[in-house]
Amino acid sequence: MQLDQATAEKLQQWERDLNAEYEQLQSRSLNLDLTRGKPSAEQLSLSNAMDGILAGDYTSADGTDTRNYGGIDGIKEMKRLGAEILQVDDGEVLVGGNSSLTLMFQAVLHAYLFGFDGPQSAWSRQQPVQFVCPVPGYDRHFAICEQLGIEMLTVPMTAAGPDMDALENLVRNDPAIKGLWCVPKYSNPTGAVYSAAVVERIAGLGRIAGAGFRVFWDNAYAVHDLGDTPAALASIMDCCRKQGTEDSVIQFASTSKITFAGAGVAFMAASAANLNAFKGSLGIATIGPDKVNQLRHARLFPSLAALHDHMRKHAQIIKPRFACVLDQLEAAFGHCDLGRWESGSGGYFISFSTRPGLAAEVVRLAAAAGVKLTPAGATFPYGRDPDDSNIRIAPTVPNVAELDTAMQVFVICVKLASVRQAIATRQ
Amino acid sequence: MQLDQATAEKLQQWERDLNAEYEQLQSRSLNLDLTRGKPSAEQLSLSNAMDGILAGDYTSADGTDTRNYGGIDGIKEMKRLGAEILQVDDGEVLVGGNSSLTLMFQAVLHAYLFGFDGPQSAWSRQQPVQFVCPVPGYDRHFAICEQLGIEMLTVPMTAAGPDMDALENLVRNDPAIKGLWCVPKYSNPTGAVYSAAVVERIAGLGRIAGAGFRVFWDNAYAVHDLGDTPAALASIMDCCRKQGTEDSVIQFASTSKITFAGAGVAFMAASAANLNAFKGSLGIATIGPDKVNQLRHARLFPSLAALHDHMRKHAQIIKPRFACVLDQLEAAFGHCDLGRWESGSGGYFISFSTRPGLAAEVVRLAAAAGVKLTPAGATFPYGRDPDDSNIRIAPTVPNVAELDTAMQVFVICVKLASVRQAIATRQ
Repeated sequence: MQLDQATAEKLQQWERDLNAEYEQLQSRSLNLDLTRGKPSAEQLSLSNAMDGILAGDYTSADGTDTRNYGGIDGIKEMKRLGAEILQVDDGEVLVGGNSSLTLMFQAVLHAYLFGFDGPQSAWSRQQPVQFVCPVPGYDRHFAICEQLGIEMLTVPMTAAGPDMDALENLVRNDPAIKGLWCVPKYSNPTGAVYSAAVVERIAGLGRIAGAGFRVFWDNAYAVHDLGDTPAALASIMDCCRKQGTEDSVIQFASTSKITFAGAGVAFMAASAANLNAFKGSLGIATIGPDKVNQLRHARLFPSLAALHDHMRKHAQIIKPRFACVLDQLEAAFGHCDLGRWESGSGGYFISFSTRPGLAAEVVRLAAAAGVKLTPAGATFPYGRDPDDSNIRIAPTVPNVAELDTAMQVFVICVKLASVRQAIATRQ
Repeated sequence: MQLDQATAEKLQQWERDLNAEYEQLQSRSLNLDLTRGKPSAEQLSLSNAMDGILAGDYTSADGTDTRNYGGIDGIKEMKRLGAEILQVDDGEVLVGGNSSLTLMFQAVLHAYLFGFDGPQSAWSRQQPVQFVCPVPGYDRHFAICEQLGIEMLTVPMTAAGPDMDALENLVRNDPAIKGLWCVPKYSNPTGAVYSAAVVERIAGLGRIAGAGFRVFWDNAYAVHDLGDTPAALASIMDCCRKQGTEDSVIQFASTSKITFAGAGVAFMAASAANLNAFKGSLGIATIGPDKVNQLRHARLFPSLAALHDHMRKHAQIIKPRFACVLDQLEAAFGHCDLGRWESGSGGYFISFSTRPGLAAEVVRLAAAAGVKLTPAGATFPYGRDPDDSNIRIAPTVPNVAELDTAMQVFVICVKLASVRQAIATRQ
């Protein structure tokens, strides 16, 4: 479909045909959901052995009774696993509860209200407080900023990570910038993996930024590879050590998409100074994380190798789902300019871009035909995509047959919206 | 030992004898801990069936797959249990993660930073922000206030709850007072149970307090009875409904001292308006609590009766420990004025008061003899007991033999400190 070369009659003809197809799909009363990055039931079942895995032994390797209070930073064997996932030293890891999002909120809150370098360093003492968000990005990151009244600036994502020239320029010239959100591996939603050069430059931001600047490094998909040769991500902490910026980066990860999405274990990694400051405020809000659940995870994954084996089973389940989406996109839009898409060799999303001004309309059309998509704009701060173009596709929950149907709907919706726009533009 | 009637020679004699006893105990290199309200290993083992209890079935009663994301306010069967524990409607309960302290911190933070009645109602917009704390009370409550810069005023605890005349007087005349901490049943540390009249009057505070006032009702020991006839606590939500003050009270409870201290389930109960506002900010910081652990609890406690059966087993374990402490206190101080103590028919603590000016010295002496006590002052805001008199005794962790030894040390330390003070006063 080459809209710009088509005659007015041809456009009208397409619109009628697409409309008929759309109405036919609508009549099927579909109820499909491509909105959130959730594991499928099949994936969750890979970890069902978690129930009963302790066999009555609730004692961690160092003799801690995990059932009782205490241990604000988690059990040792899980610190080890977190350190391996995030490529840091064991002592740089704090193991939390079931949600890395909670650790992120608490870390941002700590910096905002209490200060990583004492009360005087609390961001809230100076206004405005700003963050840089590479876009498209993750809506829950943006929501934390919005909740705390932190202003968000954007830089574009490239296939190798954020546009570093633009990012460095902002950070160097604006001391109100206190933070940066990153999903460095299989980025949400584009799937990009930050190149070694980008990681190196992000580790250097601490040297050109204003006081109190922190990178929030959400390595949510650190081990979530789909291909046989996992993408390599440079260790940002190693890069920081070389540049003396260890305090400028706070890392996060979790087992939410490894074991159970709602009952996994979250990790935070940071310098000793950052961890100590953080534990100071964390210890006001809790006596400690659920160490029993940490122990279950340690028993399920006695080594990083065991965890990688487990992740290969996840890949076997979700690879065909990604392939289904990508095949349909290629077939429909591979030879025309109605859409572009990005996808990595891991992670949970495919990022699709319509022609400018059509994302909201495509989401509306799909919803009316029973296919839920992430709201247009969600991948931008304040829910505002300036081009109204980006749509995040999450292919893991539906099975391949359902996905196939959902993507038929999606393709028709993109085409229909595009043809209608072309007709309107001609008039 | 009647110090005030004793001759100077008699006091000197006592001091020599006690010193000898103390040094003899010191030579035993004891290492005993009466500091925190933790369950003993024996108590924790009552819930060991939790591991494996799901038998592969991770689905809650309404068909929710507890393994996946979602459900910010928890699973239905646990809302039911929380509602029964806190004497409210199911719809008034939110079921959280492993820590009611976290829910308390989040609720206070919500009121302070975001506002239960919209951003304009955030306490932080006016300074100072003040709380009233009945004393002696719980150090972790005070720490939340201190962390947020909330000033603490005190009112005395009586055997029937806070001194209500003093409390109402403060709340009526000082609009900066935004909160009140309460442990209404088996209060920490005195063991007092709030009378029906006190509960009624606390429910009425919302009518005389300034805007945004909230009672933080930490019903930590709601089902933690030691005796066969549990103390009755009036339902504060029922009292609020009668007075139209439903929005003025936020309740908390947890299974930390029912199942596993570090891996239990926390509850919050509040009016629909409060819960909705709270969920707004909670949903920024988490996608949801650990529903799998909630389901484990629901399976262990299919009814409130099952939970009460379970609590009777706890009572069998800890009742002799409380008795050991109380017997020693009675034997040593029942017929003199060296100490007073309070203890309820449930809960986790015994509250002991030395003669004024001696608590810190007793704690120091005991520590030097290998018996750790909660720091003197901990039961008062800012760690400052104006009389330097109150010591909280937590008897659940040591076994009876250990407790017996620890209490021998405690008694000697109280006597020794008292005699030395009496000698110093005479000089």
